[in-house]
This record gives sequence, structure tokens and C-alpha cells, in this order.
Amino acid sequence: MDKVNLADKFSRFNDYWSPRIVGALNESYVKVVKLKGEFVWHHHEDEDELFLVVAGRLLIRFRDHDVWLDAGEFLIIPKGIEHMPVAAEEVQVVLIEPKTTINTGNVQNALTAPELHI
Amino acid sequence: MDKVNLADKFSRFNDYWSPRIVGALNESYVKVVKLKGEFVWHHHEDEDELFLVVAGRLLIRFRDHDVWLDAGEFLIIPKGIEHMPVAAEEVQVVLIEPKTTINTGNVQNALTAPELHI
Repeated sequence: MDKVNLADKFSRFNDYWSPRIVGALNESYVKVVKLKGEFVWHHHEDEDELFLVVAGRLLIRFRDHDVWLDAGEFLIIPKGIEHMPVAAEEVQVVLIEPKTTINTGNVQNALTAPELHI
Repeated sequence: MDKVNLADKFSRFNDYWSPRIVGALNESYVKVVKLKGEFVWHHHEDEDELFLVVAGRLLIRFRDHDVWLDAGEFLIIPKGIEHMPVAAEEVQVVLIEPKTTINTGNVQNALTAPELHI
């Protein structure tokens, strides 16, 4: 049962769109991820997903509207809702989502990330 | 699907040890709570609990050791583990835990809080 310092975890990697697992509770993982650029439109069939922005500014696009998140703001994306994260500059994000969640959801492509722990 | 600004949520109440629900995902709630003083020794029979410190410094006491959490740090307390949060000065905390979680766990006393949404 070790505490997690988010700044320390973010300092350990520099690639984008590749979430790192930094904690597990109940049926969920806590992950940290750096985002930059455009992701891919996708949805998660069975999983709600929480995006908490720690640094930077994140745009989450939906088919009918956009949501901007600054540091200290979070958004919960319900299962089944198509979305696409976009980051003009680097954004540091904490994700909370079921252990079954794949980053690209229903889409399988070069951005689909393996399960990585740090 | 509205974003949540943590600072805004913390500005809406001033009492201690009374968590407010600010989000729900999968089987869990996201809560914000202000802590000051000593809580009560307790455990959660079936629920792992995440404490993320947003502002201030939190001591979480266990029967055999202590953990100090500063802003930007989190700790996951596994189900069944007895613990007692202690805050010399006000601490702002985000909690993530199953919807079934009661703040005082196995203990029922004056600190046992109702389910409050803001």
C-alpha cells in the first residue's frame, strides 16, 4: 500500500497516448497518460471513463458538441458515447476506468496500447 | 454530461468530514470532502477507497504505520484495512469509492454522513 505521487509518475515517460497503470481499486484502474495531437473517434461499449486534467488543456470532442477541460477539471464519459480527445499542446491526464478498458475502445489500430504498469 | 471543476465544488461548502458526490462512473462515486481534525478508526468491509489530496497535507494513520499525503498524491486503501485520517489544517480531498461506501465504514456515530450531491 504505497502512495502515488502524480508528478513523479508523469516524469517517468514521454510518449503520448500510452496510459500507464498507477493504481487499482475495486474493478478499476487509475492510469496516467500524456496526450498530444488528435486521437481516434471511439467509444467504450461497457465502461464509463473519467478524464481528470492535471496539467494543460484538453479538448474532448463529441459528435454534437465539444468540452474543454483545464487543470483541476474532470469529465465522465458514459459507456457507449463516441468521443475523441484532442490536445494542441501536451496535456497530463489521470484516467479512472474499469480494468477491462482498452484505450481505443471499439477501434483497433496503431494507437491501441498494451497494459503498462509503472 | 457536464464537466466538474474541483475548485468550484470545494467553494460550495465549508463543513468537515461530510463528502459531497460530484460524479458517478460504473459502480463508483467521485466525492469531494474537506477534512480537519481527527476522524474515527474504521474500515470498509467490501470497498477499496482512493484518497487524492488536492490541497493541504493529510495524514492517514494505520495500526502499524502512517502515510503522509501532499497535494498531487493519492493512496488506495484496500477493503478491510483499518485507518484514520488526520488533518492538522484543512485538507481538500477527492475520494473515489464504490457507491455503497459509508464514510465511517463499520462504525456508526455522529460522523456518519448522509449521501449528499452537489
